[in-house]
Amino acid sequence: MRVAICPGSFDPVTYGHLDVIRRATKIFDQVYVTILNNPAKRTLFTVEERLEFLRRATADLGNITCEYFDGLLVDYARQKNAVAMVRGLRAVSDFEAEFKMASMNRNLNPDVETVFMMTSGEYAFLSSSIVREVASYGGDVSNWVPSYVAEALKVKLRERRQEERDRQS
Amino acid sequence: MRVAICPGSFDPVTYGHLDVIRRATKIFDQVYVTILNNPAKRTLFTVEERLEFLRRATADLGNITCEYFDGLLVDYARQKNAVAMVRGLRAVSDFEAEFKMASMNRNLNPDVETVFMMTSGEYAFLSSSIVREVASYGGDVSNWVPSYVAEALKVKLRERRQEERDRQS
Amino acid sequence: MRVAICPGSFDPVTYGHLDVIRRATKIFDQVYVTILNNPAKRTLFTVEERLEFLRRATADLGNITCEYFDGLLVDYARQKNAVAMVRGLRAVSDFEAEFKMASMNRNLNPDVETVFMMTSGEYAFLSSSIVREVASYGGDVSNWVPSYVAEALKVKLRERRQEERDRQS
Amino acid sequence: MRVAICPGSFDPVTYGHLDVIRRATKIFDQVYVTILNNPAKRTLFTVEERLEFLRRATADLGNITCEYFDGLLVDYARQKNAVAMVRGLRAVSDFEAEFKMASMNRNLNPDVETVFMMTSGEYAFLSSSIVREVASYGGDVSNWVPSYVAEALKVKLRERRQEERDRQS
Amino acid sequence: MRVAICPGSFDPVTYGHLDVIRRATKIFDQVYVTILNNPAKRTLFTVEERLEFLRRATADLGNITCEYFDGLLVDYARQKNAVAMVRGLRAVSDFEAEFKMASMNRNLNPDVETVFMMTSGEYAFLSSSIVREVASYGGDVSNWVPSYVAEALKVKLRERRQEERDRQS
Amino acid sequence: MRVAICPGSFDPVTYGHLDVIRRATKIFDQVYVTILNNPAKRTLFTVEERLEFLRRATADLGNITCEYFDGLLVDYARQKNAVAMVRGLRAVSDFEAEFKMASMNRNLNPDVETVFMMTSGEYAFLSSSIVREVASYGGDVSNWVPSYVAEALKVKLRERRQEERDRQS
Repeated sequence: MRVAICPGSFDPVTYGHLDVIRRATKIFDQVYVTILNNPAKRTLFTVEERLEFLRRATADLGNITCEYFDGLLVDYARQKNAVAMVRGLRAVSDFEAEFKMASMNRNLNPDVETVFMMTSGEYAFLSSSIVREVASYGGDVSNWVPSYVAEALKVKLRERRQEERDRQS
Repeated sequence: MRVAICPGSFDPVTYGHLDVIRRATKIFDQVYVTILNNPAKRTLFTVEERLEFLRRATADLGNITCEYFDGLLVDYARQKNAVAMVRGLRAVSDFEAEFKMASMNRNLNPDVETVFMMTSGEYAFLSSSIVREVASYGGDVSNWVPSYVAEALKVKLRERRQEERDRQS
Repeated sequence: MRVAICPGSFDPVTYGHLDVIRRATKIFDQVYVTILNNPAKRTLFTVEERLEFLRRATADLGNITCEYFDGLLVDYARQKNAVAMVRGLRAVSDFEAEFKMASMNRNLNPDVETVFMMTSGEYAFLSSSIVREVASYGGDVSNWVPSYVAEALKVKLRERRQEERDRQS
Repeated sequence: MRVAICPGSFDPVTYGHLDVIRRATKIFDQVYVTILNNPAKRTLFTVEERLEFLRRATADLGNITCEYFDGLLVDYARQKNAVAMVRGLRAVSDFEAEFKMASMNRNLNPDVETVFMMTSGEYAFLSSSIVREVASYGGDVSNWVPSYVAEALKVKLRERRQEERDRQS
Repeated sequence: MRVAICPGSFDPVTYGHLDVIRRATKIFDQVYVTILNNPAKRTLFTVEERLEFLRRATADLGNITCEYFDGLLVDYARQKNAVAMVRGLRAVSDFEAEFKMASMNRNLNPDVETVFMMTSGEYAFLSSSIVREVASYGGDVSNWVPSYVAEALKVKLRERRQEERDRQS
Repeated sequence: MRVAICPGSFDPVTYGHLDVIRRATKIFDQVYVTILNNPAKRTLFTVEERLEFLRRATADLGNITCEYFDGLLVDYARQKNAVAMVRGLRAVSDFEAEFKMASMNRNLNPDVETVFMMTSGEYAFLSSSIVREVASYGGDVSNWVPSYVAEALKVKLRERRQEERDRQS
């Protein structure tokens, strides 16, 4: 059985991520979608919220497990006996950052390959940070994330603004 | 009448920005130079100061209006009946970021085109952040920004250092 | 009246070209779609055939003239009193080549701006040479070019193969 | 059983190609290494010679078949029931060309994914054309290709020079 | 005597930096390895610690002086009568940032050239920030930095985590 | 004495080349400007003509020798006891091709460094092929090459056209 990992921060998951995840399930027998939890980095959604979104969005796919992990990705890959880590490529800027990360990971663990798949053209511009930014201005993100994520974004951003106001007053 | 928008944060305006703005006025009938005001982002100059610099720097051009705006650029474009948003391209790294932004904006509002113009070669390296950085070390920025901006930078950076010292003592 | 030029070799015109041409007609009052005829370069279609395809493909657009031209693009732009030359950008590799050409043209004639527009995402990979190559293997190109171009490609490529066989026997 | 294809022109196969092929065999159950035979393109080695080099170089790997094919890659992939086409990425310039090809192939056959793997750092600069060029100047290519390929290059290039001389005299 | 400067923040020095420094000493008579000390930027190691690492790592090289400097690099270059500033290039993303910096520096002081050297392929992915990140997860960085730096990283990161805990409790 | 090589095909030499050559003479004690003569590649000017242009264009510089060479650049560098080969960088596309060539050369001869210098911004778009193309359309190239090269281009291109006509009739 060939195991692959789709790692990311998924803050929140977008249709771009889901496009790559779906392609990965066609090639590998078992796919772990794994939130790399970095306690030092501030995220909009908690790791539990992000995990819940991922599980709901991939519920129709059979060979997927959603998890989170604190630590080095290569250690996680070893635990899971993964043959590959799957990353989506959208553009040249992605490529360079991904290339460095893949080289670093190969250096740390030569037994796991990084495998790149091309994001569908219609999502080439899409990223979690663009979703958060457009939502923060009240823009419509329903073409880019599942409806329950779009809804949660509204609630979360309203809370954030309220906190901001409370802090300033 | 063909209306275009030159959006940016202009913190502060440079001769690179002004080069692109000037080119835009040769192609469009009316050009709005618009500061995208993001209250969450900390800037060196206030929006009023940045607007004042822009107005002074474009005073000799007839078909220009300088404004600021809070919100999504595509909504602003709709309000102004703009056919185009004009962006300067200096290098590949610009191109990628601009490409994502333009794709996002086309997705949000297909009626407005993003139009790219090439910055003049002599300003290919210039950016507001480079101006701020060189000025912070006491470097001479008078080839890169109008004299009143260079002067204001000195005053502003002196204030900042004083604030820093006050906070530490 | 603001005049723009959409130059190219259009061997043959694709839906990617037509996408950029259509966007240009929304921004400029009069658009010249101009085949740059380089007698030294061998093309699949003659300049007359390419012109005929362009005229047919843009027949529904009011403010367009299709022509061909031998010589330097900047001289042509001067003749037409054009304020801009419009080029589509698909990817970073385009950007670099276009950037060099635009710099050269600005150097030769500072009165005409090169203006870049983004090709629609679905045509980001498309080029005349890809159309010719896929057609040469009998692949289906009807999603990429108008039906009469697809038909003409079949006929032309059959002729070419026949010529090849005649030469070898 | 998951089938993948490693397509290329392999004129001649290099240690860079073999590095990617080897990685592919760790991820897929069956790998077809396939020479895309384009009769219109002149190559240094015949398709039979190239196939022989590939077979010899991959003889120690169990799940590999070396073949050649005339036609569209996507048709070949369909015949073989392949889930993926594997391509090595060395640098940004590769990425762009590969991205276009992968988009084109996805457009022609959405059932086959293009999967990119990173060439090992030590072969990042290596290509068949660099091997041919260095060999043509009498340079040592034994670090870059198997010894029998290096030997065949010497013989072939000597023949070519002789043909050249015969033609000129 | 031809003097060159290898500027950087070296937080901490890596084998990638040392590779470029070593190459520079083969080309120039005297090399200053200079920490650009920016008090506004928070670093992991103090400037004294970073300087100590650099001195120890370059102790076997004769024509090297390690120093730090507050201010504009071009002023420092003038003081040292340097003909060149040496920078390592690893990838395209580097190139763009370096290109902007070199243009800015040439604009500020045309007498000093920026000279780029290629980092050895095996260190193409390596950077101080990657070393810090991997070390922060307990990963092994002994292939990327001298042993005393690896050791110091462990101690420093343990202190940081303790400080973090103290602040939270 | 530190020796460097500026290799190229110089068909013909441009002000961009001369800009880099001039910078090189400020850093190295002796500079060889070397035409890499590849008999298989067709050039516009003969190697003797190209050498003559180079000699005339660098006559005012003391520490320069202009030569041509058939063979591998690394062998030439060894003969000359060169510590460096100097290449101008204009843009990202240059960078990639140069990076591959430098890696190949380091692999063939680790004793010679490739050193990159930035072409002056005003020549960022300039290349021999652009000069030849613009001249072939009768465009003015006097800002890009010395006057005697511009003159020789006119003569040479007239001859070529005449040959072409003779062949066709």
